[in-house]
Amino acid sequence: MREAYQSDLRHIVDDLVDMAEMVGTALDGATSALLEGELALAERVVTADPHLDARQLELDAKAVELLARQAPVATDLRLLVATLRMSSSLERMGDLAAHVALVARRAHPEIAVPAQHREQIARMSELGLTALRTAAQVIQDRDLALAAQVEKQDDELDELMLTISREISRSDEDTYTNAQVIDLTLLIRFYERIGDHAVSLVRRVGFLVTGDSLDTLSEGVDVQEF
Amino acid sequence: MREAYQSDLRHIVDDLVDMAEMVGTALDGATSALLEGELALAERVVTADPHLDARQLELDAKAVELLARQAPVATDLRLLVATLRMSSSLERMGDLAAHVALVARRAHPEIAVPAQHREQIARMSELGLTALRTAAQVIQDRDLALAAQVEKQDDELDELMLTISREISRSDEDTYTNAQVIDLTLLIRFYERIGDHAVSLVRRVGFLVTGDSLDTLSEGVDVQEF
Repeated sequence: MREAYQSDLRHIVDDLVDMAEMVGTALDGATSALLEGELALAERVVTADPHLDARQLELDAKAVELLARQAPVATDLRLLVATLRMSSSLERMGDLAAHVALVARRAHPEIAVPAQHREQIARMSELGLTALRTAAQVIQDRDLALAAQVEKQDDELDELMLTISREISRSDEDTYTNAQVIDLTLLIRFYERIGDHAVSLVRRVGFLVTGDSLDTLSEGVDVQEF
Repeated sequence: MREAYQSDLRHIVDDLVDMAEMVGTALDGATSALLEGELALAERVVTADPHLDARQLELDAKAVELLARQAPVATDLRLLVATLRMSSSLERMGDLAAHVALVARRAHPEIAVPAQHREQIARMSELGLTALRTAAQVIQDRDLALAAQVEKQDDELDELMLTISREISRSDEDTYTNAQVIDLTLLIRFYERIGDHAVSLVRRVGFLVTGDSLDTLSEGVDVQEF
């Protein structure tokens, strides 16, 4: 019984890491679809998103059931509480990847991102993906030594968002169509939010390990101004 | 002891409703600052946000402590689990209101929203505020009869976001500066997300009352395409 409980707790961590892998696949595919104009790939990312939503509901149900059946305390309780927040962040990160794919799909056969910004967007995606995968490793190993890397990747994402947005603001109006400005504004925000969620994931592992505050203050407004 | 526990649970609901009121004040102030160009009001909204973050951390700590001390089951457990999700949505709604205030502050002494869109933005704010306050009532009374209203207000928010974004896309490039398009794109998204979070709050009360799925699928990608 106790055995089964411990293995249930381990499975919950595996489920979180699986969800992170699903999000990584979605994000990677969405960015390729966006920058290469691959419509079929964009469609695949959009149609895969409900599977991630379903995984979250299963995981939440498992966590709630363990809370009810085992009345966990200390680290076990914090794991289940943190899981309820982390599953929600991962599901949202999947939505953000799907939003990128939707922008790609809407722009088709055009490519939504003007040539002069494609490298920057590729870099934002790479940073988001690295932050996500680093966060997944932190979740798996409960190793907070990697936390600083995720914060740094998130800072770089914020910087790139600001840079791109300043470049657009300072260009002549005829450099971009209005639709391009709308799409770019949304895209840089989607990638930037993925970084924020990666930071949240890592801070929730911090809560799990140390018992510090559950939620992150990175959801604050400091970096949002551009 | 049991008495104290029941009163702790009631206080948690009061705390959620208080947080919703704080968010409502922030949103109302942010929109006035935005549409009237009131810099001091924008500043007040931005500097008030950390208080909301602090309220969330206190509330989360209370909920975790009750989970640990009381090993609640059934409705009490679902209340605490839903609280951990709802406090997070409310904190995020506060951030979104603060983002609106930051746009107002950045644009000052200009008004970020071009004259032809001010009524639409005022309407989005009004819808968001109504959705938030209706959700707070649902949380307080556990009365799901009002849930459909929140979904409807959210649908209207989505529609307005699409309408405004189509109007911008279809206008000549010289109708707006690039900075105006960026600001409008962010603003309509901030208001639209507030509606999504209001729907999430109500669905979590649904979980609390009925034991259905904890999280909402409204975080999906269906309405995000424009």
